[in-house]
Amino acid sequence: MYDSNELLKPGERIDELHRNDYKIIQNTKLFCFGMDAVLLSGFTKVLLDENVLDMGTGTGIIPILLEAKTPGRHFTGLEIQPESADMARRSVLMNKLEDKIDIVVGDIKEASRIFGAASFDVVTCNPPYLNQSNGILSPETAKAIARHEILCTLEDVVRETARILKPNGRFYMVHRPFRMVDIINICSLYKLEAKRMRLVYPYADKEPNMVLIECVKGGGRNLIVEAPLIVYKEPGKYTDEILDIYGYSI
Amino acid sequence: MYDSNELLKPGERIDELHRNDYKIIQNTKLFCFGMDAVLLSGFTKVLLDENVLDMGTGTGIIPILLEAKTPGRHFTGLEIQPESADMARRSVLMNKLEDKIDIVVGDIKEASRIFGAASFDVVTCNPPYLNQSNGILSPETAKAIARHEILCTLEDVVRETARILKPNGRFYMVHRPFRMVDIINICSLYKLEAKRMRLVYPYADKEPNMVLIECVKGGGRNLIVEAPLIVYKEPGKYTDEILDIYGYSI
Repeated sequence: MYDSNELLKPGERIDELHRNDYKIIQNTKLFCFGMDAVLLSGFTKVLLDENVLDMGTGTGIIPILLEAKTPGRHFTGLEIQPESADMARRSVLMNKLEDKIDIVVGDIKEASRIFGAASFDVVTCNPPYLNQSNGILSPETAKAIARHEILCTLEDVVRETARILKPNGRFYMVHRPFRMVDIINICSLYKLEAKRMRLVYPYADKEPNMVLIECVKGGGRNLIVEAPLIVYKEPGKYTDEILDIYGYSI
Repeated sequence: MYDSNELLKPGERIDELHRNDYKIIQNTKLFCFGMDAVLLSGFTKVLLDENVLDMGTGTGIIPILLEAKTPGRHFTGLEIQPESADMARRSVLMNKLEDKIDIVVGDIKEASRIFGAASFDVVTCNPPYLNQSNGILSPETAKAIARHEILCTLEDVVRETARILKPNGRFYMVHRPFRMVDIINICSLYKLEAKRMRLVYPYADKEPNMVLIECVKGGGRNLIVEAPLIVYKEPGKYTDEILDIYGYSI
């Protein structure tokens, strides 16, 4: 048993997750999870006894939320940055989840070598959204690595996912709609066929700013596009669905 | 000058288009245009003096609406079924548009041979939505040809479009969301890159049933997904945007 504060390092803080009384350690100088991670955890389906890998897990937010929300057997977070992985491990300890969640330090590009082929039922990823040609590249900080395809590209994520998923295994990703052509082309190239998609619109009359995608390894080509996910009903007021995904009582 | 009724054959009727007092001849035994054609005409951008080809024009609804709505120089409708093409030609005459719109009888699969390479600024298409593996195939009637990929596939449409568009020419298509993976993969294969997409949701909380796509020949990979297009605000009541696209005064 640990006193939560013993697990904290300077500059870190503890945030509530509104699921099973779980908490998470974050450091604003590194990278704090955003709505995209929460929405991905709400979109991801993990069935009884399945095992899950989260690629580029950062603070470990996705495995911790999926452990709370789903009947999966085991969750692994892969993270290349040792400081983030260390923080994620301490969050796992703080929530007493060390039997359910492993945090592994390693490179997404090496995932199939680290874990072996066909080793997971489900892979999740909240990858860097921007490729080298999009936007201004920040210095190579933890935040820049989380946002830009500096250490791995979308194709690296998809190629490794295709290798480590079992046949008919499922891949869940949150990304930006402007990358949708790349996403679909690259996933198809590696036989991860998009089967379910949901667009996230900040308001009912605005352009979407996120896309949630489920791909199936070796799946067919028919896609289900779901009802729009609207974030705000008015400025500062989340819709009931967003409150529910976050775990706030409505 | 023609008396409208002289242009009608048995079983045909004349419908108002709410644009420039244009009318259209239809025959319910063949195929009547639907909301998809109207939404495609609202999504398509035709600039001053551009020329446009509509692939599989049916009744000629899309060239007639685009002539009314845009400053394009000339519009051509390509239609394989002689009865439909004949009806479309009579609609062109009825609206006195014979200088602006040509209806050509021919096969989409032969479009680049008929019209030559790099001959159009804009191509539009409201193709058959269902491939041979989707749904129950109706007998090979005019309706079945309009709905199923019997006489041409999505790849035929895209390949011929890529040939007959000028460099940076634009392709506008309405289709079903469940075919989006095929659409994006096939368009990318022929260097028609999706640049703009809009999903049409019957209600704000329902799955979309149409997708509107603009591709640019030789364009880059960044896609703009637009605000959702919602059809009904309540059962039987169109949203203002739909009324506007149809040309009804709001």
